[in-house]
Amino acid sequence: MPQIAQCNGPQRARAVSQGLQGTRVRDLGEFGLIEVLAAAFEADFSPYHGMREPRLKVANGDDSAAWEAPAGTSVLTCDAIAAGSHFDLAHSDPEDVGWRAVAACQSDIAAMGFAPSHSTVTLGLTGDEDVEMVRRIYGGMAQACSRFGGRVVGGDVIRAGTLFLSVAMVGVDPAAGDAAPTRPMTRADARPGDVIAVTGPLGGSAGGLRLLMAGQGAMGGAARSLVRAHLRPEPRVETGIFLAGAGVRCAIDVSDGLGADLGRICRASGVGAVIDLDDLPAHPALPGAFPDDWRRMALSGGEDYQILFAAPSHLVDLARRADPSIAPIGRMEAGEPSVRVTGGDGDEMEAGGGFDHFGS
Amino acid sequence: MPQIAQCNGPQRARAVSQGLQGTRVRDLGEFGLIEVLAAAFEADFSPYHGMREPRLKVANGDDSAAWEAPAGTSVLTCDAIAAGSHFDLAHSDPEDVGWRAVAACQSDIAAMGFAPSHSTVTLGLTGDEDVEMVRRIYGGMAQACSRFGGRVVGGDVIRAGTLFLSVAMVGVDPAAGDAAPTRPMTRADARPGDVIAVTGPLGGSAGGLRLLMAGQGAMGGAARSLVRAHLRPEPRVETGIFLAGAGVRCAIDVSDGLGADLGRICRASGVGAVIDLDDLPAHPALPGAFPDDWRRMALSGGEDYQILFAAPSHLVDLARRADPSIAPIGRMEAGEPSVRVTGGDGDEMEAGGGFDHFGS
Repeated sequence: MPQIAQCNGPQRARAVSQGLQGTRVRDLGEFGLIEVLAAAFEADFSPYHGMREPRLKVANGDDSAAWEAPAGTSVLTCDAIAAGSHFDLAHSDPEDVGWRAVAACQSDIAAMGFAPSHSTVTLGLTGDEDVEMVRRIYGGMAQACSRFGGRVVGGDVIRAGTLFLSVAMVGVDPAAGDAAPTRPMTRADARPGDVIAVTGPLGGSAGGLRLLMAGQGAMGGAARSLVRAHLRPEPRVETGIFLAGAGVRCAIDVSDGLGADLGRICRASGVGAVIDLDDLPAHPALPGAFPDDWRRMALSGGEDYQILFAAPSHLVDLARRADPSIAPIGRMEAGEPSVRVTGGDGDEMEAGGGFDHFGS
Repeated sequence: MPQIAQCNGPQRARAVSQGLQGTRVRDLGEFGLIEVLAAAFEADFSPYHGMREPRLKVANGDDSAAWEAPAGTSVLTCDAIAAGSHFDLAHSDPEDVGWRAVAACQSDIAAMGFAPSHSTVTLGLTGDEDVEMVRRIYGGMAQACSRFGGRVVGGDVIRAGTLFLSVAMVGVDPAAGDAAPTRPMTRADARPGDVIAVTGPLGGSAGGLRLLMAGQGAMGGAARSLVRAHLRPEPRVETGIFLAGAGVRCAIDVSDGLGADLGRICRASGVGAVIDLDDLPAHPALPGAFPDDWRRMALSGGEDYQILFAAPSHLVDLARRADPSIAPIGRMEAGEPSVRVTGGDGDEMEAGGGFDHFGS
């Protein structure tokens, strides 16, 4: 990990940023940039109120960051997004890009029932980027960490043909120190008879992306809410922690589309699933914006970052009392791993296989 | 983190790999590739003998990996390497590339005095790569983990303009459970009067790279040892753990060149340094291969992944008895942060500022 100067929060960030208007990455250089970015993160970061943040012992700027971790289970995930494949700066603010990169990892950790704690970021840059734009990406990461937990404590910058961000994130047991340690929720723990449920609206991100790609100018409130669902997804960290704490054992985050992600639970658990399309909680703006297609978008649209889980019905009932946005959508059943979709217009629909970034 | 099928070690790896000769990444697809790579890692991985490996609770293939972490300090680092900037497959086997990506993180963790534990890997691919080549990169990562500790437990694959690898690695306290927890060594803990020392030969990697770039055909044993120092650097994990355990408080790994990295210690600690060029332990094959330049290469060559540390002389003496490859090279002194180089041919030399990947 390259050195990043220890920084003293907002004052230093502003000082470092002064006079960077119009400066390109290649003019500032690798080491200067790293210092600017560490300061940019700290300037916009405030520790997440609900998190028991492990105490940072060695901050950004050494060979590794170090913190005092609670005893118990740790989790680790990573997610990467690249310009062209995953985002387009013509449609997104730089802050949105940073937010989404962090939110994808927070969602992975939420789906285990854990609390985001510390992150590193690898940033790939062509060198032609405006430093201010890159600084704003880090501002977006700080916003997502302040909102849902976690903190960027290190990283690396490399020259690349395409702008990309790769975020790795550690999560810790939110119950550490309490009597009962948290058991990580997995994809492999669904059982026949379990109720299948999802923590909130689906298809919003897919709808927002489609609107952005169509390049519509002025948008009404409904359209804006879809675009916001795409650009600023909200990982369900608190709900994930609640579910694992209540005893739910099987969960996945909806990143590739409900159908595809439910298929993963089925294969990992060795069970079948049947869901009713009429029970899917489509994003409220979806039917109006896409009257012909909204059911399919709720079933197959990716990046909603809701949590899909399976649990005995009494646990689902308990969870719904705590979080009314949770909707039961079907049941696990014995049999071959497959997703059967009923309801809707009566046609069976394909549950979808997830977007393949190398697909033709 | 995308799903990666749980795998059953070598048998499954061979089964998955059968019939992949000549297959390209874009033909196999993202999800098939991820399964092949997880299997490739497991096929070549055997847990590092000296490591107390925290028990893996959720393996590669879920939203996050999970393990039972010891109480105490955790460390986190990341390093990325890209084709063109950091490696060239014309000069390196794919296994070398994987090894180097992992070794860079292991070295960061070694320089804190900690033990590598778990990693994620983000792999950027154009899609044109041969699957077998990518599989071999993961084989090299498994070799480095088997040798120096750590385990790849997840990752992400994205489409990119250039082949790159970004490795994030968590490290744990090697003394966890013992009476005295390990205090992470940092760059900021050097004091005037401390002896400066380095754990072994310098300049070998720079020499090996220069030979590879010159494209020499048949190489003698000395040249091969330099090339090996470049392609297969050996992070000093055991020595780092020993140093921190013995009470050394200040260390950095030599990744950008001894002069540059010593400058970082000086700036972080607010001290000056004076080193004697005649005391630098140049790689034994360096003077013969580069008679005019070997001193400068030992001072400024990067990626040797030795540990540079500063400590009271009695601790350096103790460390030398445990590891005779440790060489004292100078002293810290009160004053402005700067590196003064004496000895050699009598000329003062610049200590060097590290390679800037965006530099012109």
